[in-house]
Amino acid sequence: MTITLFDLAGSEDDRRFSPYCWRAKMALKHKGLEFEAVPWRFTDKDAIAFSGQKLVPVLVDGGHTVYDSWNIALYLDEAYPQRPGLFEGYESRALCEFFSQWAFRTLHSSLFKVIVLDIFARIHEKDRAYFRESREKRFGMTLEEFGAEPKQKLADFRGALEPLRPVLVQHQFVSGKGPGYADYILFGAFQWARTISPIRLLEPEDPLFAWRERLLGLWGNYAREAKGFPVWA
Amino acid sequence: MTITLFDLAGSEDDRRFSPYCWRAKMALKHKGLEFEAVPWRFTDKDAIAFSGQKLVPVLVDGGHTVYDSWNIALYLDEAYPQRPGLFEGYESRALCEFFSQWAFRTLHSSLFKVIVLDIFARIHEKDRAYFRESREKRFGMTLEEFGAEPKQKLADFRGALEPLRPVLVQHQFVSGKGPGYADYILFGAFQWARTISPIRLLEPEDPLFAWRERLLGLWGNYAREAKGFPVWA
Repeated sequence: MTITLFDLAGSEDDRRFSPYCWRAKMALKHKGLEFEAVPWRFTDKDAIAFSGQKLVPVLVDGGHTVYDSWNIALYLDEAYPQRPGLFEGYESRALCEFFSQWAFRTLHSSLFKVIVLDIFARIHEKDRAYFRESREKRFGMTLEEFGAEPKQKLADFRGALEPLRPVLVQHQFVSGKGPGYADYILFGAFQWARTISPIRLLEPEDPLFAWRERLLGLWGNYAREAKGFPVWA
Repeated sequence: MTITLFDLAGSEDDRRFSPYCWRAKMALKHKGLEFEAVPWRFTDKDAIAFSGQKLVPVLVDGGHTVYDSWNIALYLDEAYPQRPGLFEGYESRALCEFFSQWAFRTLHSSLFKVIVLDIFARIHEKDRAYFRESREKRFGMTLEEFGAEPKQKLADFRGALEPLRPVLVQHQFVSGKGPGYADYILFGAFQWARTISPIRLLEPEDPLFAWRERLLGLWGNYAREAKGFPVWA
């Protein structure tokens, strides 16, 4: 039975911009598993009510329903141990938990300010009131205030990437010799932007640029072919 | 032949406060290796001139001279593969490189502002002019300006620890089930403070407090017995 993933979509069915759904999709590809990524919108709460959740990703694999990208990664390694592992072992899994916390608190928070207005422009019409209301409540300001001074926000985001650069000069991937779950955590942030915003996040001489190219090229350009904006050279 | 580690000391021979030397000492203990930690001061350049370096840690193991705490960790795992590994494998080693970069750029930079004046008060008299001049040049301000508003600086440091807290609620150690090199990277920062400053960095209810207790207790309280200030409960 094919695995189903409920996957956040924008105004068009094939504009898939959730960084957490990207983590789950890259994890499924890494495991070599077939899956159907069903478009879902913020306000489609009924469609995933069976899972007890109000947010995606939600994965359904036969009788198993798993929510939250981290739980999905752990589930996939546990349910499919004979396929390539997302983590080398328990230590790298614990270190990935730190990496995920860092990405959430540092990268996502600064990148969100860069792309928030592009997100708002490309989400489904039925999601707009929900998005504005929920985010403005969270930020304590309007979307327009949150996304003001985009040049400064972009500089802040590029600065937040600083600890990654020496690592990606030394190694092809955050996980070392080959892509691992830490790479998918980081890549999710870049796909969040690439699918929804024309902004140029990285300069070609940035070690992260070549790393992102490697990720975009995996599995026959799987992520590159997703609807989004090209990565300019 | 006993391994020798050149280890930064303060006004007293047994006040050892370098975070990088602490990484090396914890790595040596982890490997179960005997070593002598020789006191060294910032201005003792001649004592380590044979290594081509001007900074510690410098490790001498028979015919091998190794400098830089990261190189020392890699050397120890390579030279003593039959002893407990500092890294589970190549992936966790790459993730530790990121962790080390993050600790340097985020934790050390904010903690240095909290303890800089305590360091200056407890370094060897012969190091004072060197320390003031080199650090004031690096900071572009006086030591006193750099260390001003210590309450705000402490709050910033505690904030910088945020991504670690969910991990240490979930796991006993940053490396998961047992202490690994990532723990020694983080612990080095806390020993830097504990050996030189009476400041209370953590509240007992902080998950990092219990984690630090675990590290202080390793190998029969090895790090706790180092000259420093008690960790108040």
